[in-house]
Amino acid sequence: MGFLKVVHLEEALNVIASFNLEPQIEEVALENALGRILAEDVEAPIDVPPFDRATVDGYALKSDDTWGANESEPVRLKLVGQINAGDIPSFKLKKGEAVGISTGAPLPEGADAVAMLEEVDVEGDEVLIYKPYYPQAGVMKAGSDIPKGKKVLEAPKKLTFKDTALLSALGFQRVKVFRKPKVAIVSTGNEVILPGEALDKGKIYDINGRAISDAIREIGGEAFFLGIARDDEESLREKIFEGLKCDMVILSGGASAGVRDLTSSIIEEHGEVYVHGIAIQPGKPTIIGQIDGKPVFGLPGYPTSCLTNFTLLIAPLLRRLLGLKEEPNKVKKKLAHKIFSVKGRRQFLPVRVEGEKAIPILKGSGAVTSFVDADGFIEIPETVEILEEGEEVEVFTF
Amino acid sequence: MGFLKVVHLEEALNVIASFNLEPQIEEVALENALGRILAEDVEAPIDVPPFDRATVDGYALKSDDTWGANESEPVRLKLVGQINAGDIPSFKLKKGEAVGISTGAPLPEGADAVAMLEEVDVEGDEVLIYKPYYPQAGVMKAGSDIPKGKKVLEAPKKLTFKDTALLSALGFQRVKVFRKPKVAIVSTGNEVILPGEALDKGKIYDINGRAISDAIREIGGEAFFLGIARDDEESLREKIFEGLKCDMVILSGGASAGVRDLTSSIIEEHGEVYVHGIAIQPGKPTIIGQIDGKPVFGLPGYPTSCLTNFTLLIAPLLRRLLGLKEEPNKVKKKLAHKIFSVKGRRQFLPVRVEGEKAIPILKGSGAVTSFVDADGFIEIPETVEILEEGEEVEVFTF
Repeated sequence: MGFLKVVHLEEALNVIASFNLEPQIEEVALENALGRILAEDVEAPIDVPPFDRATVDGYALKSDDTWGANESEPVRLKLVGQINAGDIPSFKLKKGEAVGISTGAPLPEGADAVAMLEEVDVEGDEVLIYKPYYPQAGVMKAGSDIPKGKKVLEAPKKLTFKDTALLSALGFQRVKVFRKPKVAIVSTGNEVILPGEALDKGKIYDINGRAISDAIREIGGEAFFLGIARDDEESLREKIFEGLKCDMVILSGGASAGVRDLTSSIIEEHGEVYVHGIAIQPGKPTIIGQIDGKPVFGLPGYPTSCLTNFTLLIAPLLRRLLGLKEEPNKVKKKLAHKIFSVKGRRQFLPVRVEGEKAIPILKGSGAVTSFVDADGFIEIPETVEILEEGEEVEVFTF
Repeated sequence: MGFLKVVHLEEALNVIASFNLEPQIEEVALENALGRILAEDVEAPIDVPPFDRATVDGYALKSDDTWGANESEPVRLKLVGQINAGDIPSFKLKKGEAVGISTGAPLPEGADAVAMLEEVDVEGDEVLIYKPYYPQAGVMKAGSDIPKGKKVLEAPKKLTFKDTALLSALGFQRVKVFRKPKVAIVSTGNEVILPGEALDKGKIYDINGRAISDAIREIGGEAFFLGIARDDEESLREKIFEGLKCDMVILSGGASAGVRDLTSSIIEEHGEVYVHGIAIQPGKPTIIGQIDGKPVFGLPGYPTSCLTNFTLLIAPLLRRLLGLKEEPNKVKKKLAHKIFSVKGRRQFLPVRVEGEKAIPILKGSGAVTSFVDADGFIEIPETVEILEEGEEVEVFTF
């Protein structure tokens, strides 16, 4: 049993990096692609527009037929038909001919310009042209918007409405995105109850289950909150095995050390425990192990400890599985007031950000408001006892 | 028939403001509340924690029993039991007694402090206390984290994982949020086809349907894309009436003026057309009307025109229905190069933002890439013909 495997944060991160997990790719319908992470670069499979297209209502013609035209001596072209948007023109325009055309309609073969409706007159079956047109006047050339073969989207990228619109314009019905990692979440503790249950003396409402589930959803993962396991082996084992249907399992500890030891021994029994304790404060009582190759995490029960460790350890793993490059998620701020730490203890302290200031929240990791009011946390190394007001600090944002 | 109702942008916005639409409130389960807009302020219905709670593993005691204690003369207290997290203590601690207590467990009546496990010794049924404890040592008082009655969330507010976690800690199973406005979207035009269909000559893939649907989802509304209506009265009428099951209907025009006139006459027949044209460029051919009191919008077919008018007219309406205060969505930037406009024409020009610069996109509103590459647009008033490089401009972001 490896109950005393207390490691440095870096070792814990190495353990997580060594898990045999890779981003998975799946295809989704374009109408479900918004907000998903694009998994492969996209090249235009077609020209946009796919054909030479009239950009105005008017008459398609051969530009060189018009080059002598002026107001007193209009060129007269023979009107040979009408092409509307969506029509498929089957004829070829000959010298001296014009054809009515509406915006968006394809130019017929032989035509290379469009005279605007307002600029011409029609007499019987003749169109009177009063000025010369240059080639491509009133025309959007095939591929001039997006040429076939152009790389239009680079993976990985979170798809916005502009991206899905672009993919639609290119005719994509489906798109390759990274599969959302599925995460099972279990809260533990005899004192923890679910919202809606009667609050008997000694009980508290669950916070970590909801916090972790929704933090996972914000990152882009799929969260399955399995409810609360009681502090007994049977209840814990049942929830852990239910959770193993997902890609990983996160338990957040009840307050007691007993649950942690139970969790650890269940993991040892069916898999392996790599980490039982991380040398950081808060968040020391953290378990990292695997069953059937799937990571099982035991996070501390105190909400701030739980969320800090989730942010340090699990959020980067989820982002990696979503194909996202490691975001730093760090901003530099000035400390709003002096704080004292303890030498020899590597501390992560929740802070609220206001403009350029980082305001430490000193309520303790047992307080719900420590993390609810926090925008992130700062790291205080083991060697530092005092951080002065105004000192530059790096805030890891949630 | 009001086919010539060309109005200024401000009049169009007034028409929209006068629609009889109000934000609606609905209750959702807390597990579905992430990302929704909170509709009512939330006050804490309970104290958090709900009871005086041990913050360490150790022994609950009466602090005044310990005030003479030191290492050479420890105070001896009688050990009378054990309270674990989740237990409901039924006894009252008497003078000279201590009770084992685990982190998170409720203090029994009579106790006001907890001595840490590591700081004491146990001999038989006695606990040896080597130092004085002040009242509340090792204790988190009921309500010290969040007192009952405190306003913890102010509406309107988009709920983050921290908010849902807080609501869970307060025992809320359900939460009041603004109902998502339901919007029906119809693309029109004989030349427009859906992704996945064969691209015959003269056809183009739909872009506006996907763009508007996903833009609505990004804002927080619910989008129902009804597909493409052909350029005939029956097809248009069918789609419009299908769309009237929603809160509003948005049609985006095909390229032809015929569809616009058809749309307008169908609206006139069953309801009223208030606007048929807005004096802006691009986006002039815009229809605003109602059937059965439900807004029906006809947006231009060109993608940039369509999205510009969606952003100017409909996005603010959706935000209002979501209970959100009017966001300005504007940033000040410097124009990257000189541009020419036309006097007497109020123009909205797409721009890309790079650092402090706004780079005009001059591809024309027929190009997909005009809006795909754009971060927003700038307004050029009717009286302005030239904007110089480096001039300050306000960018309306998408």
